[in-house]
Amino acid sequence: MQKSQLFIGVDSGGTLCRAIIEGVRGRVEVAGPGCNWTTDPARTIAAIRAVLRSCAVKAGLAEAELRRARAHIGAAGIVSSSDATALSRALEDLLGEVTASEDLDCAVAGALGPSGDGFVAGLGTGSFLAGRQQGTVRRVGGWGLALGDEASGAWLGRALLARALHVRDGLAEPSALVARVMDRFGNDPAELVRFASTATPADFAVFAPLIAEALDAGDPAAADLLNTGAGWIERGLHRLGWRPGARLCLLGGLGPLYTRALPAQLSEAVVPPVGTALDGALSLARQAGAAQG
Amino acid sequence: MQKSQLFIGVDSGGTLCRAIIEGVRGRVEVAGPGCNWTTDPARTIAAIRAVLRSCAVKAGLAEAELRRARAHIGAAGIVSSSDATALSRALEDLLGEVTASEDLDCAVAGALGPSGDGFVAGLGTGSFLAGRQQGTVRRVGGWGLALGDEASGAWLGRALLARALHVRDGLAEPSALVARVMDRFGNDPAELVRFASTATPADFAVFAPLIAEALDAGDPAAADLLNTGAGWIERGLHRLGWRPGARLCLLGGLGPLYTRALPAQLSEAVVPPVGTALDGALSLARQAGAAQG
Repeated sequence: MQKSQLFIGVDSGGTLCRAIIEGVRGRVEVAGPGCNWTTDPARTIAAIRAVLRSCAVKAGLAEAELRRARAHIGAAGIVSSSDATALSRALEDLLGEVTASEDLDCAVAGALGPSGDGFVAGLGTGSFLAGRQQGTVRRVGGWGLALGDEASGAWLGRALLARALHVRDGLAEPSALVARVMDRFGNDPAELVRFASTATPADFAVFAPLIAEALDAGDPAAADLLNTGAGWIERGLHRLGWRPGARLCLLGGLGPLYTRALPAQLSEAVVPPVGTALDGALSLARQAGAAQG
Repeated sequence: MQKSQLFIGVDSGGTLCRAIIEGVRGRVEVAGPGCNWTTDPARTIAAIRAVLRSCAVKAGLAEAELRRARAHIGAAGIVSSSDATALSRALEDLLGEVTASEDLDCAVAGALGPSGDGFVAGLGTGSFLAGRQQGTVRRVGGWGLALGDEASGAWLGRALLARALHVRDGLAEPSALVARVMDRFGNDPAELVRFASTATPADFAVFAPLIAEALDAGDPAAADLLNTGAGWIERGLHRLGWRPGARLCLLGGLGPLYTRALPAQLSEAVVPPVGTALDGALSLARQAGAAQG
């Protein structure tokens, strides 16, 4: 078997770390717990090594055979080329030929396929926007909930809770959605404040589905929140150079919701993703191999 | 010495816990480390007991003499009447006759004096708005940075960092203020994101003074941020019933800055506070005594 016939892709996210091995006999995938490089590099490396080893077992490969593969690792929290270099170096003993990048690159390469122009909006617990033009990927957002992640599930949920306090203060109009949220906290704003003081992005994102349901019922608060998120997506995509005719993939659980909230020009451009982030990781492994010859 | 001749006030904040004893021979004040009732009731009680004891020592009073006093405790994080009851009960062995409330009530009673109508905007690391009309205090905001504290130093600092990322993404115009902030993070947005992911309100508030300086230099980002904060203050005060002719006290480090940013109608209403939050705590202790007869 030649080197170029074994490829490995890893999509290491904050919650799940997934690996895929593609050989002549097909593909094998495994998943394990994830981690974020920014907050814990050592645990991220350990998480990736663990899924690589169990993927090798599942594929019927001896660990040493992994070194014959070309691999690409996309990891959440990789924010600079020195991060990427550090991560790939930490895996060289196991993988031999390996490149690394932030997980966003794998999502884009998967959604848009190995080549061609297009745009991606990642709209899950967090958010990012990206555009690939003539092989170059540029991005907007994806900075985390503390300062960004506009339009994301966490951002929507947090904005909904803040709005509930504005209603309490008489600074925003009451709505059925807000009443439903306050009811979850026993109509006690202090409980809401306590919750928010320690809530993670995933904790806030729990409220995003309520917004989707309320939108169907014509709730004005739901429409406001979603329109604000859609406005950010629209500005960001135009900033990245989106123009009518360009394809747009919406990834993450909120894709269907925003397809309804975006202006027609954008929602009509929405196409299903070509593949997953693991497909993207494999295609980046292949590209790195091709670049090296 | 009669009961009514010894009064105790405590202003227990997140950073500092201060106590005052007022007797026939004058006033004695001490300060110690503070705590927030919502996040740690036991430590809050311990912090208050510690300043009460050291204040008694400084005043030349035996601990048992504290029980002759009427006391009022204002504490950060008290958000319901059951919180207030729990706190006062926890101090009854030491103080005898004691009432408790959130610290905002002491700030208002201090700033506006024991009686009379008026409005207060607390504009420090956090924020709140309050209005006292015919003896009743109502408030807007003061919900903490996760969901509120609009216009506060923490809110301004966080908004400035978010704006720096928007400039990086091409979604906001560059400015000298934003360049100065990015320079502090080595012009690396990843460093900024790392800082924000663990920053406390006090960490974000560190950037508020830069906004004040940049305003003098005519920086458009500084003007935008401050106008957004001033707009919230204006809406909140009108919601509380502020009308031309009513007095307005701005408390906290950002008072002078917002005096410049508020519309003339409001800035012309600004008067210096009558007293401090400890003065307010003493006047609430006196009122509680008068109410009991």
